Amino acid sequence: MTDERTGLWLIGARGSVATTVAAGLALITAGGAAPDGLVTEQPELAGAHLVPLGHLVLGGHDVTDVPLVKRAAQLADAGVIPHAALALVSDELDRTCHRIRHGHRDGEERQADAVERLAGDIRAFAEAESLARVVVVNVSSTEPVVVAHPAHAALDALEQAWAAGESPLPASSVYAAAAFTAGAAFVDFTPSTGARLPALEQLAQRHGVPWGGSDGKTGETLVKSVLAPMFAARSLRVRSWAGTNLLGGGDGATLADPEAMESKARSKARGLEAMLGHPVDGPVHIDNIADLGDWKTAWDHLTFSGFLGTRMSMQFTWQGCDSSLAAPLVIDLARLLDLAARRGETGPLPALGFFFKDPVGSDEHRLFEQHRILTEWATAS
Amino acid sequence: MTDERTGLWLIGARGSVATTVAAGLALITAGGAAPDGLVTEQPELAGAHLVPLGHLVLGGHDVTDVPLVKRAAQLADAGVIPHAALALVSDELDRTCHRIRHGHRDGEERQADAVERLAGDIRAFAEAESLARVVVVNVSSTEPVVVAHPAHAALDALEQAWAAGESPLPASSVYAAAAFTAGAAFVDFTPSTGARLPALEQLAQRHGVPWGGSDGKTGETLVKSVLAPMFAARSLRVRSWAGTNLLGGGDGATLADPEAMESKARSKARGLEAMLGHPVDGPVHIDNIADLGDWKTAWDHLTFSGFLGTRMSMQFTWQGCDSSLAAPLVIDLARLLDLAARRGETGPLPALGFFFKDPVGSDEHRLFEQHRILTEWATAS
Amino acid sequence: MTDERTGLWLIGARGSVATTVAAGLALITAGGAAPDGLVTEQPELAGAHLVPLGHLVLGGHDVTDVPLVKRAAQLADAGVIPHAALALVSDELDRTCHRIRHGHRDGEERQADAVERLAGDIRAFAEAESLARVVVVNVSSTEPVVVAHPAHAALDALEQAWAAGESPLPASSVYAAAAFTAGAAFVDFTPSTGARLPALEQLAQRHGVPWGGSDGKTGETLVKSVLAPMFAARSLRVRSWAGTNLLGGGDGATLADPEAMESKARSKARGLEAMLGHPVDGPVHIDNIADLGDWKTAWDHLTFSGFLGTRMSMQFTWQGCDSSLAAPLVIDLARLLDLAARRGETGPLPALGFFFKDPVGSDEHRLFEQHRILTEWATAS
Amino acid sequence: MTDERTGLWLIGARGSVATTVAAGLALITAGGAAPDGLVTEQPELAGAHLVPLGHLVLGGHDVTDVPLVKRAAQLADAGVIPHAALALVSDELDRTCHRIRHGHRDGEERQADAVERLAGDIRAFAEAESLARVVVVNVSSTEPVVVAHPAHAALDALEQAWAAGESPLPASSVYAAAAFTAGAAFVDFTPSTGARLPALEQLAQRHGVPWGGSDGKTGETLVKSVLAPMFAARSLRVRSWAGTNLLGGGDGATLADPEAMESKARSKARGLEAMLGHPVDGPVHIDNIADLGDWKTAWDHLTFSGFLGTRMSMQFTWQGCDSSLAAPLVIDLARLLDLAARRGETGPLPALGFFFKDPVGSDEHRLFEQHRILTEWATAS
Repeated sequence: MTDERTGLWLIGARGSVATTVAAGLALITAGGAAPDGLVTEQPELAGAHLVPLGHLVLGGHDVTDVPLVKRAAQLADAGVIPHAALALVSDELDRTCHRIRHGHRDGEERQADAVERLAGDIRAFAEAESLARVVVVNVSSTEPVVVAHPAHAALDALEQAWAAGESPLPASSVYAAAAFTAGAAFVDFTPSTGARLPALEQLAQRHGVPWGGSDGKTGETLVKSVLAPMFAARSLRVRSWAGTNLLGGGDGATLADPEAMESKARSKARGLEAMLGHPVDGPVHIDNIADLGDWKTAWDHLTFSGFLGTRMSMQFTWQGCDSSLAAPLVIDLARLLDLAARRGETGPLPALGFFFKDPVGSDEHRLFEQHRILTEWATAS
Repeated sequence: MTDERTGLWLIGARGSVATTVAAGLALITAGGAAPDGLVTEQPELAGAHLVPLGHLVLGGHDVTDVPLVKRAAQLADAGVIPHAALALVSDELDRTCHRIRHGHRDGEERQADAVERLAGDIRAFAEAESLARVVVVNVSSTEPVVVAHPAHAALDALEQAWAAGESPLPASSVYAAAAFTAGAAFVDFTPSTGARLPALEQLAQRHGVPWGGSDGKTGETLVKSVLAPMFAARSLRVRSWAGTNLLGGGDGATLADPEAMESKARSKARGLEAMLGHPVDGPVHIDNIADLGDWKTAWDHLTFSGFLGTRMSMQFTWQGCDSSLAAPLVIDLARLLDLAARRGETGPLPALGFFFKDPVGSDEHRLFEQHRILTEWATAS
Repeated sequence: MTDERTGLWLIGARGSVATTVAAGLALITAGGAAPDGLVTEQPELAGAHLVPLGHLVLGGHDVTDVPLVKRAAQLADAGVIPHAALALVSDELDRTCHRIRHGHRDGEERQADAVERLAGDIRAFAEAESLARVVVVNVSSTEPVVVAHPAHAALDALEQAWAAGESPLPASSVYAAAAFTAGAAFVDFTPSTGARLPALEQLAQRHGVPWGGSDGKTGETLVKSVLAPMFAARSLRVRSWAGTNLLGGGDGATLADPEAMESKARSKARGLEAMLGHPVDGPVHIDNIADLGDWKTAWDHLTFSGFLGTRMSMQFTWQGCDSSLAAPLVIDLARLLDLAARRGETGPLPALGFFFKDPVGSDEHRLFEQHRILTEWATAS
Repeated sequence: MTDERTGLWLIGARGSVATTVAAGLALITAGGAAPDGLVTEQPELAGAHLVPLGHLVLGGHDVTDVPLVKRAAQLADAGVIPHAALALVSDELDRTCHRIRHGHRDGEERQADAVERLAGDIRAFAEAESLARVVVVNVSSTEPVVVAHPAHAALDALEQAWAAGESPLPASSVYAAAAFTAGAAFVDFTPSTGARLPALEQLAQRHGVPWGGSDGKTGETLVKSVLAPMFAARSLRVRSWAGTNLLGGGDGATLADPEAMESKARSKARGLEAMLGHPVDGPVHIDNIADLGDWKTAWDHLTFSGFLGTRMSMQFTWQGCDSSLAAPLVIDLARLLDLAARRGETGPLPALGFFFKDPVGSDEHRLFEQHRILTEWATAS
């Protein structure tokens, strides 16, 4: 196994998260940075014998043409990547840049053709780089809420719709279909639909590949997933939990669209009730503040009652850099999906809930319980 | 067992915490309030067959004479107890009030005599109320840092010092000695010395009683005990953690004394390094703001770095009512110490770390790990 | 003048704000509380010779029947009014309670009849209590955004519509019309329409009465009105200003209605641009959190740039009790409108902008400039 | 006048603030940045005919040798200066770098000699650059609290002490003495002693130069100076005001020294009582958090009571870059002191209180009042 290399194929390969993944992986393997933020470098997971960082090869799809080196320079100006790193990683970024293929946009081609073309890109990547396996991770912008379509319900129906020249899938699901068709594992790091349609689940099953998701837990929800269990452990009743998320950059602009916001907000709300065991009054807002750039500020305010019903409150402000928080988790997920594929696991992977706001196949949202499940799964022989 | 009653003897029995315990227990057993905030009412602990709330009988020591009913009225004005509850609990408060005996003050009597007198009060309480067991809980004001004395090191030395008419113990340890002498379990809910002296530990061992402590984890440190492990679980490196605690009321005034503050601040700092595995730059301040009354506001600011060293920050403000947060834990501890005594356990109880900032016999500060340990211990047969 | 008494007629006379006004005025004039929070008690305004607090007589309209004494007890439980005050003010509250007349609800009567009936109530109050003047202040719940109607544009058109049996006015404007018809001054303390329609302005002019408004500046916007000028004075460019308001109680529930929220949010946004001289990216949210009761928590986050464009940020959390903040301003406004009426001033009063988020007849939103204008106006001879 | 040039001589000329001043002035005069943050560019001050930015020439004293270009690169990495600016300003920074002379350190030379030497440097600078006037601004690290010495009380006594070979002045006062001796105006932007000794005031008078200070108001205190008057204007009684300042970088390390902290904290506390008219319970902490670098986070929590004594609270967090906030004010002060010197004003300048936490010759701490006084003074003919 030690010589095997694994491909990490990013959807949205020229975006902030993907560029941070590429620059960071290059910097760490060159010895220019410690593997901070990587869960898979923890001693608890040593027994999992994951693919070494230096054996990951990057490629991907994107609909823009901006060179990675230029994106990296922008991220350095924004404080996401150290300026000093740019010179060290530019050659490797150029190599990754050449492995990025043109992505898929609605209307440019028949959807069935798109799936074939994109799957072909992934297969060609695996062959050219002599990869043992490929993991596809979607880190592109969040999609608007998707309109239901009968072809979502079953693979048969989907294939008939495709045969009839229809395009019933959202773009994220087209990428998932391409991954499965190419025999690659798939992870949706965004709240988009991705593989979460019965038709797609059947496609994954047909090709015998594992998949995971969705919606990376990188900030406010991460904190919620330890605070809510804390109140429960102390029998303190949470009575309201309001949250405001100020986002800049691409994601902020996308989520300014009320439908996409709805999609993300719903994904955030789902877990709280599961952790507390009762519904809680709690509006969640997502605002686009262009001035924040790659940074995100979340404010949460919660009220709770304790002994004899006395009301108390807590508030927190989280100021994080989304790309910095997401990038190491993307690498973690690539290594863990690679492990699942190596072991021959197929279908949704509930053991990865630790990474997600909206974990497939699991109702467990408590972080430390998720961490225990992850460690057990990864180190099982 | 079902008919057995257990005594809960409070040191500082006319203080805010003790009055809240007394009023709350009366209200809950009268059906006037739900047992919110009580950890021992959780389903996970049902298998422990703890003494029912209605079988707890209250008494205690205090150095003031203010009637409990008057203290309860003050707490209602401060929003700690519902105004509507006062009429419901006044008879029961009067009964408890009659069971409070005069406490111990330095210089009023020889220390050896004090221990005998106080132990006698506890024994008389147990007899008068036909109690199966008594648990003594110290909820009096925090003491200044104690000057070391050779008599602290061994029970022999302590007894010789007493025989020579000396008074080498701080008041909290006098109460612990009285509890042990009376065969009662003891808990220190404050950061004071209490039972944490070799001489006292030997006394507990001689009388075959269990004890626990110290310094109830009711606010800022509670939050720390879930946030610090969260950062560790995500491989995010905490780089600084500064805290400011604004306290009113009695505790604030006591802690305004720099030595006592030092004592409390050190107790808070100890756990953070244990949870993160490395020291962290982190000043902690405790300020007395008389205007806050029974309420406490804590602000914590922490910086952390993630992927490629990118710096991020988080801050939280906790606004709690100390008496409301402490009172149910005092009742929980009484029930759990009663369980330990019933089972014949003796000496320090590390399994109770869940409740404390500075847990005796344990270096585990992570809340959910502490919760698991507590549940296992309590439900072990 | 010293013997003259002035009526303060409250629309929403059994609501939280009105009950706090009534209880507070009774308590202060009985010597049970200092006049804290009353701007008109400042030495700067001594030269204005305002009507003494003890010469204000309360009455009003409301559509509910709950006794003031009961409302006051609820407010004491919520911490708005001291419990100890209830006994002192109950007789005076009963007297005020008897002066409250049934208010107006859409559809119960023809609008023209309603104006006559309500005006009659005000006139009868003035006569029964031998009042020199009456000031009507609207402190009822915020209305939804009003649909435009041709009859709003001119008094002629309004009277024709009334003659035709139509009901073109929102309730707040019906009350304003009644006030003017009765020769009383009028203040809208809410963001509702009130007197801000050309037809109503003409009616005020016809009856020769002054009026003021609108939307009392009691919290977040108050802070904005000093912080925004601070940044301007230092040439620091504010780049975004996001706000989240968590409200409980009646107002929260009313504003949960998206249209009413829109009305309030727009009123808040208007001033910021005026103070900064340029538009600012700034979403404002108003959420109903029932658990907060009479309390309100606002969080504002703003980004600004300084020298060489360096980005910095500030955030604040305001935790206030709306009724406590509003009540003294209502009393201030009654005294100041009484002054205007005594002096024979008519029409909108821009000098009162100090009190309002959306000041009539003024674009000045900077608090200290407004304070200067107010003081000059009030003390002009 | 238009051809006259003015020297700005910085004490601590290689520090963060001075480097930001030098880089910023070079960038702005080269057209590479707008004059954001400069109060003296406001239209209100146009009538003052201040020296144009392009007519300011920089020099200074420092005890280190680090090249300005290197310091600027560090500040760019820290986000204080845009990376893109480095290339544009490096030539100008080199020119400034050559005008920096070796500063003064205790024990290196007799204090009387030091004053002569430093004054000589300033005179040589004025001559070499053909400057009409020179303004000296102290932006070096804060000194510890100074021990009183009889020679501080009068110029006679100081000169006798010097003649006797003594060194009774702190370094900041040595620099002030040098400035005055060279006929230059002096500003202390730090809380150090500087010119605030009777002996130094007499020296300024002898040489007929103006001076100002002290302790630039750049963050938390700036906000206080608008919030405290806001509460006063609304008759809301501030009951406590606690503050915590987390500082990194050089200033943080210096202020970690308890004596220096004491000095800075006292300077902060002084103004609050002046603005509110009564003392307020209010601990202020200054902590050194190395990880914050050039950034500063301040958290203030205040409680206030309103109508009927109801308690409410407010808290704010200010996250600023000290060098970015200080640098433009240093330039403003140079231009304003130049104006005073041009006009022939001498002695302390209370009209500059707008810029300072601890304004010489003034008890006015309210920002907008200070702004009015500044504008009147600057534009007086």
